[in-house]
Amino acid sequence: MPAPLRTPDELIAVLHAAFPPPDPDVAIRIDDLGDATIRMRVPVGDRPLRPGDTLSGPTLFSVADAVAWMLTLAHLEPGRDAVTSSVTMQFLRRPLPVDLVAEGRLLRMGRRLSVSDVLLYSDGAGDPVAQATVTYAPI
Amino acid sequence: MPAPLRTPDELIAVLHAAFPPPDPDVAIRIDDLGDATIRMRVPVGDRPLRPGDTLSGPTLFSVADAVAWMLTLAHLEPGRDAVTSSVTMQFLRRPLPVDLVAEGRLLRMGRRLSVSDVLLYSDGAGDPVAQATVTYAPI
Amino acid sequence: MPAPLRTPDELIAVLHAAFPPPDPDVAIRIDDLGDATIRMRVPVGDRPLRPGDTLSGPTLFSVADAVAWMLTLAHLEPGRDAVTSSVTMQFLRRPLPVDLVAEGRLLRMGRRLSVSDVLLYSDGAGDPVAQATVTYAPI
Amino acid sequence: MPAPLRTPDELIAVLHAAFPPPDPDVAIRIDDLGDATIRMRVPVGDRPLRPGDTLSGPTLFSVADAVAWMLTLAHLEPGRDAVTSSVTMQFLRRPLPVDLVAEGRLLRMGRRLSVSDVLLYSDGAGDPVAQATVTYAPI
Repeated sequence: MPAPLRTPDELIAVLHAAFPPPDPDVAIRIDDLGDATIRMRVPVGDRPLRPGDTLSGPTLFSVADAVAWMLTLAHLEPGRDAVTSSVTMQFLRRPLPVDLVAEGRLLRMGRRLSVSDVLLYSDGAGDPVAQATVTYAPI
Repeated sequence: MPAPLRTPDELIAVLHAAFPPPDPDVAIRIDDLGDATIRMRVPVGDRPLRPGDTLSGPTLFSVADAVAWMLTLAHLEPGRDAVTSSVTMQFLRRPLPVDLVAEGRLLRMGRRLSVSDVLLYSDGAGDPVAQATVTYAPI
Repeated sequence: MPAPLRTPDELIAVLHAAFPPPDPDVAIRIDDLGDATIRMRVPVGDRPLRPGDTLSGPTLFSVADAVAWMLTLAHLEPGRDAVTSSVTMQFLRRPLPVDLVAEGRLLRMGRRLSVSDVLLYSDGAGDPVAQATVTYAPI
Repeated sequence: MPAPLRTPDELIAVLHAAFPPPDPDVAIRIDDLGDATIRMRVPVGDRPLRPGDTLSGPTLFSVADAVAWMLTLAHLEPGRDAVTSSVTMQFLRRPLPVDLVAEGRLLRMGRRLSVSDVLLYSDGAGDPVAQATVTYAPI
């Protein structure tokens, strides 16, 4: 896989323009970007979590979708975009009330479709809370 | 498939208790419940949609997830619950700015896992905007 | 969805050229072809089935894959082809030792990707043995 | 993940009893088994490959299915079995006419369901030919 065409700051600017974070302190961010890999983090911040509270399925879905979007955009020239084509997601364990860490790997970057594998972890835990395979269509 | 063990009103009460609708006028509702089928509707209401606005991927995911949850709970005694095990979703077309209609079909209701097929439509359109296969684990 | 560009006989000739059936009596065939739907049949024939014998997972996969291929080729000009991009398959019940009947529906026929929903039944049974969502990339 | 309850030889004996390899020289084998990981190999052997010949989709499916079965059985007491519940497979690149190498990782081993992530490579190549997420139900 060739080197990324955009920096983490350029990528996160696109993400936050599309989905303005309600609170900058808990905004999703990119911790590391390699040629075919990315590590992102969703801070818990000071969000008061009610007892039993945890990250919901739709939230985990949004994070996995964002990870694959960032990986795909990293390999498209600035200005180009991509739309979600499919998501397959396995819910493995209940997340802990800590930061969520996402490890993404770009398996294929094609003209028609990118394919990314995403693992979501509760920060510090060895076993993933969810796994997703996400395809994006460059437009 | 045997007849449902709960009424649409009982099911929707569980859904709204877990996800309180911000506006009752646009709350998701059950239009029809059969032995293995369900039709649900997400009203657009008076939500002012900006130009180009459309239902987001995470919103479509939430709706498909809710449809499969309702189909599964319909076949579990009142008081029992189920958690999402996996979701596979195909994004087919951009939704129109009208009500979203969901057609769900329960393909299997097992002790360990239910399997549902869900099609999402823009109300009045013949082609679906998304298809999902959702599995739920009764607990 | 527009009308098919090929007849069932033309389609099945492509399938049998790629996968020559070992025995013409048990060759997979097309029973019905509509604008966005197809019904195919895998005859059991005189195959001696050992006790407990049933159609294997890879066989069910091959059938679902063939159904989506036929649906996709039906909407591509003769001479064009398509390759499998992804398959998601739910195994629901053990097949009975009778003909396998497949009901396919084309959910989207795009330039880059077709998306098909496939249900597999033991002939005469009301509940499906497997469900698959298959995407094909036209080439 | 705890240590495996069976050795590679015990596991491969179960696999070959269920699917007798037509030629022992090209039988699938286990190269490495860790607590949550497995590496398997499908030798090409002396199989005469016609020009353009490659491993078919159903063959790749069978290999991914076998990898997840072995990973699951490794964590069930000898004598117990498991059946495929679902498979999601992305076809990424055409395989080369060399040995196929599979890297499997067990993401969750539950009472109801195991979840495995499988990557398939042409031996020596850096990019995978296919990715699969496979769930198995212990019985």
